[in-house]
Amino acid sequence: MPVLGIDIGGTSIKGSLVNSLGECKENFVMPINPNLSQEETIEELLDVIDKYLQANLNGESLDGIGMGIPGSLDTEKGIVTFSNNLKWEDLKIVDLFKKRYKTPIKITNDANAAALGEARFGAGKEFKNMVMITLGTGVGSGIVIDGKLFEGYLGKGAELGHTTLVLDGLSCSCGRRGCFEMYASATALIRQTKEKMSICPDSLMHQISNELGKVDGRVAFMAAKKGDKAANEVVDQYVKYLSEGILNICNALRPECVVLSGGIAKEGSYLTDKVLNYCKLQDFGYPYSPSLVIKIAELGYQSGIVGAASLLL
Amino acid sequence: MPVLGIDIGGTSIKGSLVNSLGECKENFVMPINPNLSQEETIEELLDVIDKYLQANLNGESLDGIGMGIPGSLDTEKGIVTFSNNLKWEDLKIVDLFKKRYKTPIKITNDANAAALGEARFGAGKEFKNMVMITLGTGVGSGIVIDGKLFEGYLGKGAELGHTTLVLDGLSCSCGRRGCFEMYASATALIRQTKEKMSICPDSLMHQISNELGKVDGRVAFMAAKKGDKAANEVVDQYVKYLSEGILNICNALRPECVVLSGGIAKEGSYLTDKVLNYCKLQDFGYPYSPSLVIKIAELGYQSGIVGAASLLL
Repeated sequence: MPVLGIDIGGTSIKGSLVNSLGECKENFVMPINPNLSQEETIEELLDVIDKYLQANLNGESLDGIGMGIPGSLDTEKGIVTFSNNLKWEDLKIVDLFKKRYKTPIKITNDANAAALGEARFGAGKEFKNMVMITLGTGVGSGIVIDGKLFEGYLGKGAELGHTTLVLDGLSCSCGRRGCFEMYASATALIRQTKEKMSICPDSLMHQISNELGKVDGRVAFMAAKKGDKAANEVVDQYVKYLSEGILNICNALRPECVVLSGGIAKEGSYLTDKVLNYCKLQDFGYPYSPSLVIKIAELGYQSGIVGAASLLL
Repeated sequence: MPVLGIDIGGTSIKGSLVNSLGECKENFVMPINPNLSQEETIEELLDVIDKYLQANLNGESLDGIGMGIPGSLDTEKGIVTFSNNLKWEDLKIVDLFKKRYKTPIKITNDANAAALGEARFGAGKEFKNMVMITLGTGVGSGIVIDGKLFEGYLGKGAELGHTTLVLDGLSCSCGRRGCFEMYASATALIRQTKEKMSICPDSLMHQISNELGKVDGRVAFMAAKKGDKAANEVVDQYVKYLSEGILNICNALRPECVVLSGGIAKEGSYLTDKVLNYCKLQDFGYPYSPSLVIKIAELGYQSGIVGAASLLL
């Protein structure tokens, strides 16, 4: 009685059958052809799925199809309202799927799907209330309350990356200023690293980035661990931004657990120890509050597929 | 089949029987004697309730007791962990009530109770998902999701007033800096008004505050409506703070409706029109998002009693 989980990304679509334990079969992967219309892309996807199910369903019945999609959705009506990355607009994706498959079909935002996957089968599985923050190109977020995805009215909430942390701060692509995303994403850390490097020509960060061939989100952390002063300043400032955003999430939503994912989360306990230390010094605003639990995501790149399937598991 | 709703304030305790339509009988009011211990205060309250029920229950059965209490609570265990205003600490209030009454008893934070009251029987009654913001001495907040109060883990969430809006901003009593409360409360507006008055000796705000005998939250609004330039700057700046906080709430929680209460909310549509206008210019970050609906609370000082009762209605 498996469910098909589909993770739609900017350049490819991945999917797998997922069983009730959150276990996947082998994935299918379909590159997105940018020359096709949105409807043609879905037709191609449906053909790929047909073949995948024929090869993998082994006579079992399909219990549903769940999809994680980047962009703004109307999850109730099953419509991709607008996806900036995919250039999809007003795409009635659930209706197109229903013409082919007589099974329950649900969609959610890709960050929400990943959060649900981690909540059910990954780092958050011991907790009923969990928030996942993805520190990547932007800051994605997903909120799970009482074991269920919380998406806000018409699926338009849970955009914690687009809450203002710095009034009148840096301009964000969303139209606001000073969004959490502008200070805590991997993109932001790279900007902060480059800024510090430009005024600290002797920093170890120059040597490390030369060896890596680029300045990425690892440079400041690598140099900081070796005692570089400028790098430690970058890391401490980044930890402050991230921690203030996490404290906001805690005071607003008070989850039992905050799960970090994305490139920066690979720093593991080196990062989470610093965040916990910062948050402790802030006393959380509420000395009687439960202790903050921060974990690193466990499912990796499969979280989107498992989470999309979890919409129907 | 009424429920007893109890609203515990800093100086007095009010309560009333509430029926399934949210209608109250006459309130009881008990001043809090600061010379009594917390347990003695509860004993006195239980005696007041006994008499009130004898006079008002008219042979009906009591279906439950709900209480709204200021401070940090453990709502699952029924304990007042700490109340700064009342100087209560580790008070097992539900256990004390259960010794006297064999009926379901629930507690919640006072701001949560007021929000639930407005959600069920007031400004939010047409909506399933609503956030109430109380613009008073501080900024209180309550979150209603799918018609139910959302309190966060152990009842320690929904403190939207204590989310940072201005990184490294003004010090808040909660221990953090730059909290929403420090910029959007009535206290904040009075501070902002006084600051502007001190550098604008010709502003109409001086004359109005002289007539009122004080600088309160109305002064800037009254002078702004008469065209005073300095007052309009105060109001516009305040509207910006409030709106940025509301935009944060929308992007995080995307409620169907935001309800404003407290002293500043008495400005009504003069305030909400300005907030809606500000938020529109921000495009909400998401041009495809549903329109923001802002309403003014309708139940007034009864919202706490009705909301506390609603925990069991």
